[in-house]
Amino acid sequence: MLVDPFGFGRIVQDGFVFRQNFSIRSYEIGADRTASVETLMNHLQETALNHVKNAGLLADGFGSTPEMCKRNLIWVVSKMQVLVDRYPTWGDVVQVDTWVAASGKNGMRRDWLVRDSNTGDILTRATSLWVMMNKETRRLSKMPDEVREEIGGYFVDSPPIVDDDSRKLPKLDDNTADYIRTGLTPRWSDLDVNQHVNNVKYVGWILESAPLPILETHELAGMTLEYRRECMRDSVLQSLTAVVDKGVGDLANSGLVECQHLLRLEGGGEIVKGRTQWRPKYADRIGSWGELPAESA
Amino acid sequence: MLVDPFGFGRIVQDGFVFRQNFSIRSYEIGADRTASVETLMNHLQETALNHVKNAGLLADGFGSTPEMCKRNLIWVVSKMQVLVDRYPTWGDVVQVDTWVAASGKNGMRRDWLVRDSNTGDILTRATSLWVMMNKETRRLSKMPDEVREEIGGYFVDSPPIVDDDSRKLPKLDDNTADYIRTGLTPRWSDLDVNQHVNNVKYVGWILESAPLPILETHELAGMTLEYRRECMRDSVLQSLTAVVDKGVGDLANSGLVECQHLLRLEGGGEIVKGRTQWRPKYADRIGSWGELPAESA
Repeated sequence: MLVDPFGFGRIVQDGFVFRQNFSIRSYEIGADRTASVETLMNHLQETALNHVKNAGLLADGFGSTPEMCKRNLIWVVSKMQVLVDRYPTWGDVVQVDTWVAASGKNGMRRDWLVRDSNTGDILTRATSLWVMMNKETRRLSKMPDEVREEIGGYFVDSPPIVDDDSRKLPKLDDNTADYIRTGLTPRWSDLDVNQHVNNVKYVGWILESAPLPILETHELAGMTLEYRRECMRDSVLQSLTAVVDKGVGDLANSGLVECQHLLRLEGGGEIVKGRTQWRPKYADRIGSWGELPAESA
Repeated sequence: MLVDPFGFGRIVQDGFVFRQNFSIRSYEIGADRTASVETLMNHLQETALNHVKNAGLLADGFGSTPEMCKRNLIWVVSKMQVLVDRYPTWGDVVQVDTWVAASGKNGMRRDWLVRDSNTGDILTRATSLWVMMNKETRRLSKMPDEVREEIGGYFVDSPPIVDDDSRKLPKLDDNTADYIRTGLTPRWSDLDVNQHVNNVKYVGWILESAPLPILETHELAGMTLEYRRECMRDSVLQSLTAVVDKGVGDLANSGLVECQHLLRLEGGGEIVKGRTQWRPKYADRIGSWGELPAESA
């Protein structure tokens, strides 16, 4: 075993996979005693950046390569799918593997596989799509040949670790949403170096309009997010959620709940559209959770 | 050197000090490229819990010892003082040392010393006071002899690492506050296992009413917080800030700004009173920050 005392991670598997361990800290767990989905996504973000850094290609602190920086290009995430089999708890160590692949002619896919480093059990699988944007014009860009030369050698030739959820995300509005939370504003600590809101923060806002009875009795099992535009420091957001009928199709009798989400600017622009799946909490763990409060069991 | 591959920490210095390293992650830095004060306080919380855990005295996940659990006693923080000399940045490794001492007959003091693990430079010093509360009656409790026997052997006999800031914190109100932020509510992810808001979250809310021009041009150099009562899941909070005249006493010509804060329930009860000191950003670092945006330089 290679020792990695500070948890910086390292490249494994012939140079194609970056691996980093994280021990789950007390402040990363929530009301359910498990790591929150934001924690999970933070770990994904951290490994993505460290992957680029370890490859010697990190030029700006946000994943841009030297050739991208020359051209004022940045990565923007357009889609993210996450499937969570099990959430780790305080003291658990998770092993995050990440790798990249081509996506069409101009995009990049990044996948993650998260395991319990002790048991090897798969905890989470995630896949994401990224495109390049010009930082000045805010327009999408083709991938320049020079950038492809920098990163193409790292691309793997494998299908996404999560099947593409290509079902169209309907646009929610005041009439179709069941829950609307208004007046959401970035906290100072939500801002990144560019004074933008980091895309992980959006997840917290989306869950702000998820109904409390679902949050209390269910856990997030899966999530598809489509990112449409940036949220800036002065943005005021609304979070809309619709709970989809539980009795249809695969969801019948499973106890699963599906929700649709929209995060929009108070002025109207779409920031994120999303879909979440929820399963009953502790469904397969009854008996091992002696300390569960009655209302959650 | 003892290897601690997963960063769980260990007891050092004859058993009196618990030491744990943290590498600062990309998602723990904010708009200034440095770790936020909440990140710092999260690390303090984590080492406190791991200290109790390493001593074999952690009975409930919140720092209560077995004898405390028997009696339904929990620790509650009554006061916290933090001095920050320098904030670490992404990739830095910080070494957090923590130890405990008696505080009067029934309380406990916990101190922390945070260093840059590479250079040994002191980054942060913090001290805190804790008392015991009965979880059912919510009344403060004396320290039972059985608890003193459990933990007394770990108490060090040294003065606090930060001199006590005993200046009375004035009670702000609508007339004396310069800035008031209303309607602050806990996010689901702000709640801990007891459905309470973790005390670190309060810091974010306090800073919510700090004026943007100060946040943009200054960094938090020091903070004194007095915790008065708990914030529950349904609480709606107001954050009040008064900027103290800069031209008085030690603050004259130093560029330092001092603020007073109150976090209160919309119904009126005090949650936290506080005082913060701010120093001009990058004051001693001009020249080494090539990427600084013009407006921050």
